Amino acid sequence: MQSIIPHSDLPQLSVGRDVVLNGMVCRVRELATVSFIHLRSEVGLVQCVVAGALPPGLCTHAAVRIRGRAVSATLREPSLTHRELEVRVEAIDVMSSPEEPAPFDVSKPELEVGAGVALDHRALTLRHPRVSAVFRVQQELVRGFKQALFGQGFQELHSPKLAAEAAEGGSEVFSLDYFGRTATLAQSPQLYKELCTGAFNRVFEVGPVFRAEKHATSRHLAEYTSLDFEMGPIGGFEEVMQMATHVIASAMSRVKQVCGPQLALLGAAVPEVGAIPAVRFRQAQSWVGAAGNDLSGADEAAIGEAVLQKTGSELVFITHYPTATRPFYAMEDPENPELTVSFDLLFRGVEIVTGGQRIHRRSALLAKMRRMGLDPEPFGFFHQTHGYGLPPHGGLGMGMERLTQQLLGLANIREATLFPRDRSRLTP
Amino acid sequence: MQSIIPHSDLPQLSVGRDVVLNGMVCRVRELATVSFIHLRSEVGLVQCVVAGALPPGLCTHAAVRIRGRAVSATLREPSLTHRELEVRVEAIDVMSSPEEPAPFDVSKPELEVGAGVALDHRALTLRHPRVSAVFRVQQELVRGFKQALFGQGFQELHSPKLAAEAAEGGSEVFSLDYFGRTATLAQSPQLYKELCTGAFNRVFEVGPVFRAEKHATSRHLAEYTSLDFEMGPIGGFEEVMQMATHVIASAMSRVKQVCGPQLALLGAAVPEVGAIPAVRFRQAQSWVGAAGNDLSGADEAAIGEAVLQKTGSELVFITHYPTATRPFYAMEDPENPELTVSFDLLFRGVEIVTGGQRIHRRSALLAKMRRMGLDPEPFGFFHQTHGYGLPPHGGLGMGMERLTQQLLGLANIREATLFPRDRSRLTP
Repeated sequence: MQSIIPHSDLPQLSVGRDVVLNGMVCRVRELATVSFIHLRSEVGLVQCVVAGALPPGLCTHAAVRIRGRAVSATLREPSLTHRELEVRVEAIDVMSSPEEPAPFDVSKPELEVGAGVALDHRALTLRHPRVSAVFRVQQELVRGFKQALFGQGFQELHSPKLAAEAAEGGSEVFSLDYFGRTATLAQSPQLYKELCTGAFNRVFEVGPVFRAEKHATSRHLAEYTSLDFEMGPIGGFEEVMQMATHVIASAMSRVKQVCGPQLALLGAAVPEVGAIPAVRFRQAQSWVGAAGNDLSGADEAAIGEAVLQKTGSELVFITHYPTATRPFYAMEDPENPELTVSFDLLFRGVEIVTGGQRIHRRSALLAKMRRMGLDPEPFGFFHQTHGYGLPPHGGLGMGMERLTQQLLGLANIREATLFPRDRSRLTP
Repeated sequence: MQSIIPHSDLPQLSVGRDVVLNGMVCRVRELATVSFIHLRSEVGLVQCVVAGALPPGLCTHAAVRIRGRAVSATLREPSLTHRELEVRVEAIDVMSSPEEPAPFDVSKPELEVGAGVALDHRALTLRHPRVSAVFRVQQELVRGFKQALFGQGFQELHSPKLAAEAAEGGSEVFSLDYFGRTATLAQSPQLYKELCTGAFNRVFEVGPVFRAEKHATSRHLAEYTSLDFEMGPIGGFEEVMQMATHVIASAMSRVKQVCGPQLALLGAAVPEVGAIPAVRFRQAQSWVGAAGNDLSGADEAAIGEAVLQKTGSELVFITHYPTATRPFYAMEDPENPELTVSFDLLFRGVEIVTGGQRIHRRSALLAKMRRMGLDPEPFGFFHQTHGYGLPPHGGLGMGMERLTQQLLGLANIREATLFPRDRSRLTP
């Protein structure tokens, strides 16, 4: 019986230090007497300098183990994680090499392939620094979101994605055979997070949700990652907006703090999140000459622009959405039942968050379901718990990919999705 | 236009301080002149002391806002988060009250309901301190897992749960209609995390996976949360075991550090994770008189017991599983192709981790798929990328619920699952 010892720490890079790095070769530039390798290692993208001939098999997409010494950098490329130093190579071990040529070159500064080809070869395009940078930023947005909520006493949930009933209803539901019964794929963790306020008060979840979107747009996916929280007891939906402000500020601040190189590479700027202005739905409509019970994409863009002009804020809450366009669990405004105590949050003219206060009394929930023509029976597990007592509560949902897209100014939400799923795409 | 100000910090509890707490009433004990309330608030479970009559509607499952002063505790109950102080109440606002009586009492020290009823009313049983404590421990296990991997330069993934092909094959696949095609629900993020080693070197994911388990057992679910990582380039599968040791140690250490009250309540002890012993599959079999190409539950229990006796370790790696019982992507042992460079990790006699080195060369992968009678065509997106170059890589998968069950000594995995899904259960 042998013993496995704990894994050693990450290599420490500082000028003058001997290091061993394991990594993938991202780019090779051979000059007359010296070669430069961009190595994606466990400590990020590092420039390695090799004197003399390169070993056989050393090329882009080769895996290598390099032994060398960290020295001051001769060139400071912005795409490198370590710009202040480079590694003077003493030995290279080529651990693996490609068996076939890649269909396009990901070592160029710009990816020169069409969007369809890029997605068909997603595992390859993800290797481009501008593409992988998107996912580093996304990761830090989520870490900032979670950090803020853990700090406020929230419990993380892992609610089921298979359920008997669709939380949000409508036609955009995937269903499947589940041991002879029909199950649906979760459109949101809505019902479960509401139930859990009775057990944990404050809860959040980061997980996949599924929408059978019939239309191809640059902002919708058939599967995306939803950032959700729900909190109780609350005195009003304004407390949810306060928490929303706190988590958005935390997410943005984290990205600003740790993703400098990625933001520079992508030419993106993080918004200042201070006090986010709030405007009522009907008033916002009046500013831009809109009507009806919902906002179009054009309305949202115009409202975002108007608020930016008036206040300088890239974020704005729109409150008091009409009851007609909110789901059954939305609480009506006690002063006007045609409106709900709910909100959307627009970021650069696009809705990134939908939230509000929910109905917490069973009698009120059943009355509203009946008014809307919904059969309460299949939702028994939900409203029964309301009867046994739930705190006044509210929360929100935010699409991780949409948030990333807006922050980084990406033309298509697929660019902010690792392996996107839509009507026509199920592979890779 | 009004402005939303950032959310204030959590209430700070210390003796002598005035506080406002929002929470749910978990227990009320009325004595002659004074009442004690256990309040689950944003800072945990706190005892509140009320002099005089309680306001109408104040009962278990009511939501309240309490104003008062923190004082030294008169009683120090182990189930409280704050044992050293209690809150002397000056004002109570009852924000909501139950409309109907609950079917059983969750304010007693033990939940006196059968397992089936407990699951039928899961939203209610989750309110019992012994039940919610399980999920606090689970949350911290996952945080420890992630903390270790972020610290080692891993990128977090959100891979699709809908795919054209089943990664692990077999009959335990859920499938569904996807815009006129057939999609499967992910049994694991295996193929995607392998592909991503080519883009990020080190990756991990925490997300749901789906298995159409036909049999009801105390250790299997139809949907569970899988903790996965994959890393490259590696020099051998031992590096994956080293990283496994590191993440398990980090998860256990975090729980030990922050879940003292929960562990005490549940009577559970965290194992010491130092150097985890490793034994070859065939040798482990010989110890317990087992044969065949896989280990039964009884074999695993006997091996766990033997290792505990020999070394004092509650954890043991079993290495070099037979090729016949490992999936197509498992790398064969260069010294003996009938074995793989793979491992399971047993914890207290139960497998909690399966991992190993994977095949990284396309030619080797295609040859193995053909030997196994698998059609490579549907997996084109997978082995094509191997051809373009993947690092030598390996990783593991670990069931979050199984890990929690073993750590806390729970009889059934459903006790470690928020809303369990099995052959007969799709609600709540």
